[in-house]
Amino acid sequence: MKARLADLSAGLDELGCKALLVLAPSVQDTDLAPFLAGPVHLGECLLVLPRGEAPRLAYLTPMEREEAAATGLALLSPEDLDVSRWSSELPDPSHFLARVVGRALDRCGLSPGRIALAGHGPAGVIQGACAALSQLGWIWVPGNALVYSARKRKQPAEVAGIREAAEATGAALRAVARLLASATQDSSNSGELWLEGERLRVARLRAEVARVFAGRGLEQPRGNIIAPAEEGAIPHSSGTEDRVIRAGESLVVDVFPRGRLFADCTRTFCVGPPSEPLARAHALVQSALESAHLKAVPGARGWDIQEAVCDRFLAAGYPTPISEPGTKRGYVHNLGHGVGFDLHEFPTFKKASGAEGVLREGDVFTLEPGLYDPAGETGGWGVRLEDLVHLSAEGLETLTPLPYEMDPRAW
Amino acid sequence: MKARLADLSAGLDELGCKALLVLAPSVQDTDLAPFLAGPVHLGECLLVLPRGEAPRLAYLTPMEREEAAATGLALLSPEDLDVSRWSSELPDPSHFLARVVGRALDRCGLSPGRIALAGHGPAGVIQGACAALSQLGWIWVPGNALVYSARKRKQPAEVAGIREAAEATGAALRAVARLLASATQDSSNSGELWLEGERLRVARLRAEVARVFAGRGLEQPRGNIIAPAEEGAIPHSSGTEDRVIRAGESLVVDVFPRGRLFADCTRTFCVGPPSEPLARAHALVQSALESAHLKAVPGARGWDIQEAVCDRFLAAGYPTPISEPGTKRGYVHNLGHGVGFDLHEFPTFKKASGAEGVLREGDVFTLEPGLYDPAGETGGWGVRLEDLVHLSAEGLETLTPLPYEMDPRAW
Repeated sequence: MKARLADLSAGLDELGCKALLVLAPSVQDTDLAPFLAGPVHLGECLLVLPRGEAPRLAYLTPMEREEAAATGLALLSPEDLDVSRWSSELPDPSHFLARVVGRALDRCGLSPGRIALAGHGPAGVIQGACAALSQLGWIWVPGNALVYSARKRKQPAEVAGIREAAEATGAALRAVARLLASATQDSSNSGELWLEGERLRVARLRAEVARVFAGRGLEQPRGNIIAPAEEGAIPHSSGTEDRVIRAGESLVVDVFPRGRLFADCTRTFCVGPPSEPLARAHALVQSALESAHLKAVPGARGWDIQEAVCDRFLAAGYPTPISEPGTKRGYVHNLGHGVGFDLHEFPTFKKASGAEGVLREGDVFTLEPGLYDPAGETGGWGVRLEDLVHLSAEGLETLTPLPYEMDPRAW
Repeated sequence: MKARLADLSAGLDELGCKALLVLAPSVQDTDLAPFLAGPVHLGECLLVLPRGEAPRLAYLTPMEREEAAATGLALLSPEDLDVSRWSSELPDPSHFLARVVGRALDRCGLSPGRIALAGHGPAGVIQGACAALSQLGWIWVPGNALVYSARKRKQPAEVAGIREAAEATGAALRAVARLLASATQDSSNSGELWLEGERLRVARLRAEVARVFAGRGLEQPRGNIIAPAEEGAIPHSSGTEDRVIRAGESLVVDVFPRGRLFADCTRTFCVGPPSEPLARAHALVQSALESAHLKAVPGARGWDIQEAVCDRFLAAGYPTPISEPGTKRGYVHNLGHGVGFDLHEFPTFKKASGAEGVLREGDVFTLEPGLYDPAGETGGWGVRLEDLVHLSAEGLETLTPLPYEMDPRAW
């Protein structure tokens, strides 16, 4: 935490700001959670980090005294901020917020000047409050990117939280494999799979995934992707509930639940023998993933690894975002992204000039090459294999140590 | 939807604004969802409603073309907004947003002037983008409250979405009752309950609730409350995982899952005979709830019903927020709140001078009287009974028709 606070103070210095202000609908806010040592339950709150000093957390509800104290942070109480007075005198939420923020900054010994603003909230309320405070001499500087950078490197307790969520993704994918392995094939030529006396649909697999996460206290705030054949051929498609799974087709299962933090993992299944193009694509994707694992070392640029993967796929005859920008066939996306407080954060694998594009010790990120053909002979297919990894002092740790096999019986 | 759009245009007129702008991290945003006829999957987007005209939805990712089209709204595509150009030229997200918003307003035929701002997003980015656009003559007016008011009255499809989530709350509470009813009491005097060879803990009940919601595709983005005795005596406490449930104590179970929309329902259980103070409080709370049901008619003010409940509890010897502001014993909270796109919305049962405090046909809200004693002789207790209701043309419809009994065997 010390290193993160030092990074933030250095960033404030660069921005010429005397403090960072984080507005948060709850402590789960992705810009506020990085200041906490562990999970607590707190509603609307805000945090002030005067440059070079310790952060102070302001909470707005007297009932939340105990939870606020549990953060171990220096506190500003609702009484310190005169919350009950403003709340009765100022029904307009932007006027209320302006008063509370003004009071919080004042209680931190700050006088009007440049403040970096981060966190999240209602657009009109925030804009209105900032405008009112500008009248008093406060100058606002966008600060979300500063916190975004400071939370790139994960602390041990955060890695532990991600690991816990990653273990659950493993359990969910294994549960899906179990169902697929025990499904039987329709006696007709349709190839439709049956399970428990019914056609096996996406909805059944999705319910199984939800059951696994629920049993471990994880949520899926961004849903999941369970996408067969033509649906899996479009990385963005999440899969239609009623769609019946068939033998011989690809099935992309991409789960990204949140416990204390997020995890993210993808495997691609095929019940029965895959078509030749599908089998070939799967072998290539697996080999690209294994090679990416080896290249993900401290100091490596995400974009360089993305380029290497593109080269490899292009040499095998598949278009890539570099060889054919906007392609919908072949390799059509980025190699990975940071994971943690949010599902997508730094490091980035996009072309980036700054530190956000460089892998460093403490980073947690995905590696997820894929190949797609929306117009394949057999009606479209998609293959994606995604590991969640942690770049630790001991090397690259795979947080999702699961089989890569398409055949669920191999799980 | 027509009525809602007309309300919004009238509101824009009052604010002297030529349009409403809604910024949204996804279409699930509580200020954006009220413009949609049904569920779609869309990431970051924005909506412009020029006063008196139809809304236009701008999406930012070409991949999301189909989902955007499925909304049935007039669209602004990423190409219309030059998204790929700004995204490569402007790495600073507030500069990017300013360009995209400026282009969207322009494409809607608007010239610089007063715009009501709603939706949600990163505080610094929004403030920065608004400041940049202010330089060009755009004037920002807080608009979250406008949308908040316009979404008070629910449309039939929205009520259907809430009803679906409410049915799931019923299934979850019945599942909890089943576990409690089949638990056995420890042979010692501790009163601890046992189930399936283990002490019955809050965690077991929480897993059961999660299982029920997962099976129906619902999430619990705000968790739930499963709070025995001294924990249930503090309405804010969510209940500790390891706490073993005991016979004779109160157990507050408050669930508030989100499907397409939110639902919210509370019951209080007691395995075995309750203490006299607990039994008396439960009977009073049930009678207060039944009486509140009768008073919740179109035109009634939420605050008036809250006052009536306070009078009733005070007459029975319990302090209330009116008789003793800030009390932690007796009745300590509001009677209810609107439910729908968010867990808490209009109508309000707080003292309010405007339309937000008046119950109208189409409103969906909770009624949830409760009594608490953190320092009760038996170590504290809490009782809350919460129904979710819909004020329809036919009268007050209870969306949570469940037993009120504390004894789980009566379920």
